[in-house]
Amino acid sequence: MRLTPEPTTLGVVGGGQLCRMLAEAASPLGIEVVFTDPTPDAPASAVSRDQIVGGFDDPDALARLADRADFLTYDIELADPDVVEEAADEAGVPVHPNPDTLRTIQDKYVQKEALVDEGVPVPDYRAVETRDELADAADELGLPLMLKAREGGYDGRGNFAVETRDDFDEALDALEGPMMAEKFVDYDRELSVIAAQGDGETAFYPTTETIHREEILRRTVSPARTDASTRRRAHEVARDVLETMDGRGVYGIEMFEKDGEILVNEIAPRPHNSGHWTIEGARVSQFEQHARAVVGAPLGSTELRAPTVSVNILGEDGERDVSLAGVGDLLASDARLHWYGKREERPLRKMGHLTLVGEDGGDTDELLREADEIHDELRFEE
Amino acid sequence: MRLTPEPTTLGVVGGGQLCRMLAEAASPLGIEVVFTDPTPDAPASAVSRDQIVGGFDDPDALARLADRADFLTYDIELADPDVVEEAADEAGVPVHPNPDTLRTIQDKYVQKEALVDEGVPVPDYRAVETRDELADAADELGLPLMLKAREGGYDGRGNFAVETRDDFDEALDALEGPMMAEKFVDYDRELSVIAAQGDGETAFYPTTETIHREEILRRTVSPARTDASTRRRAHEVARDVLETMDGRGVYGIEMFEKDGEILVNEIAPRPHNSGHWTIEGARVSQFEQHARAVVGAPLGSTELRAPTVSVNILGEDGERDVSLAGVGDLLASDARLHWYGKREERPLRKMGHLTLVGEDGGDTDELLREADEIHDELRFEE
Repeated sequence: MRLTPEPTTLGVVGGGQLCRMLAEAASPLGIEVVFTDPTPDAPASAVSRDQIVGGFDDPDALARLADRADFLTYDIELADPDVVEEAADEAGVPVHPNPDTLRTIQDKYVQKEALVDEGVPVPDYRAVETRDELADAADELGLPLMLKAREGGYDGRGNFAVETRDDFDEALDALEGPMMAEKFVDYDRELSVIAAQGDGETAFYPTTETIHREEILRRTVSPARTDASTRRRAHEVARDVLETMDGRGVYGIEMFEKDGEILVNEIAPRPHNSGHWTIEGARVSQFEQHARAVVGAPLGSTELRAPTVSVNILGEDGERDVSLAGVGDLLASDARLHWYGKREERPLRKMGHLTLVGEDGGDTDELLREADEIHDELRFEE
Repeated sequence: MRLTPEPTTLGVVGGGQLCRMLAEAASPLGIEVVFTDPTPDAPASAVSRDQIVGGFDDPDALARLADRADFLTYDIELADPDVVEEAADEAGVPVHPNPDTLRTIQDKYVQKEALVDEGVPVPDYRAVETRDELADAADELGLPLMLKAREGGYDGRGNFAVETRDDFDEALDALEGPMMAEKFVDYDRELSVIAAQGDGETAFYPTTETIHREEILRRTVSPARTDASTRRRAHEVARDVLETMDGRGVYGIEMFEKDGEILVNEIAPRPHNSGHWTIEGARVSQFEQHARAVVGAPLGSTELRAPTVSVNILGEDGERDVSLAGVGDLLASDARLHWYGKREERPLRKMGHLTLVGEDGGDTDELLREADEIHDELRFEE
């Protein structure tokens, strides 16, 4: 890698909080961000060279993005891989991860098939299109099970927990398009490994424990409060997962832990909410890591600095003129704020997060309690 | 402090590397940066909401800046305090630090007088306008002495080391406007304290050792390799210095250490090169601290995470089409890169810096050697 007076430009499809934090982290490397997003003044706009207003599948917007970029990447896996690929080919610009990886990941069934091919352990699953197929799946996998739309879901949208046969109709009504039934895992813990695939090298962050409610990530604890052998096993599985992923970049790998076994839940081909803690808690953050990987620079250290927890700040009532109060208390504490600059609050929308780094060798239970207390002082008010 | 969908905008006079790193650090707080700078595509432009192209004394540019800002601050003390003050008053926007502080600091003689009034120890000094006054100053202060232009100097520009009486003519020719003669301090060490003045509170980073060559800062070592009582004394002096400074913000206080005594050399009313190490080495960086202070939010922790050194990456030959090679080795090491995105390399121009954080309780001599080795692999090539 060489640094020149002319900066390296990263073209990013999507300008949400991931792109915003990517831009914050890329700047010290001399890497600038230009991005496309349909929403004007998207979160990343405050810290990027430029926003091209346009949809994730808008050929014109993506062509303009590719023209300005030295490398293309995504902050959202809902980008249209065909359109991205064509824009990149036309401009002769590399895309990372590969659009094929996006295609694999976008269809949860295809994603699972690819993982199974590589020997990655996943919960049992079946493709489902009809009521009869759902009934068969229930016979084979047992109830309860998770019915998932194969495409387009995120943060629990597109998932339906089927408890009994009486739920079949409601579940089939709720989801659109082809579906997948997945054996319900009564997990002991949910885990995540943020993995980076660079130019001929890989790197893995310490295994993180993720705590969801209503299928939305609420809190992370790093390192995960499980035994060292399980954390190592999670890394082995993450290594196998990367074998199925084509292209450089950071991948967020969500897992279930059950009786010391690891099952892969889902993969995001991008920096992930479960890795936000790395900004303060690791030597090099997942965002800088993603920038390094995509441009083909050496990967940085994933070493934990000290135990770290993060808590998401979610929207509440969706009023337009609210503000977040209690921020002073947060800033006066040892926690660190990351506010995403979204122009509108909506219920359960990710508006920001806070991170609390403890002392080396400190107690993560206590750290989490402390972070929760700080978080509980925050409130949206008119 | 409240966070609203409408972001807080920091208007910054000057868009160099300090503004760039300020913008990187302000973003997580939900604070956006707009700045004025006469050079298009100034370093901060890549990570700011907007650049207003205009000089530091351009009333029109500063009026437009004030109109868009919730708070005004500087990345450079060469801003015209009268023009800034008028623009701020007109728009009803607070400025931090106060323009009066800028006036005091811009004239090195007035700065020294203000410090002496507060009982802050400084090297002996005399105002000098003529050859006779310089001769008198040499009699009183001894030779060698430092002759300094009272206004406009930085990075050693505007300073002349007068060794003997034969240097008088050359020194008087080299400097413009009113001058100041300062007793030459044969210091044991140069130190710096980054101090923050918030809303009714102050905070001080661990005392840093600064290593200059040709009067340009080359390296910093934190904590300074001096005894604990001297580091504490530096903090006491910094506390007194803040008493003379009106307005919130971060101040860089440069000092000489001689036989355990502290003498203040110069003060910068802004984040300072000797505090760049705080990005990785302290809990909250000087840049986030400055943003917090200016908007009146609580100050953050100045705690050292581990011993940290920084090395400046300076321009060499000033060719236009050079690039910096050896960056891959830097990124593959434990050092962290900060590249400022300047469009032109010039001899001794600050192009970037690297930071190396060691282990808690580790050896700073060894850390500095390691950082030097990484730095020595960097080279500008055509």
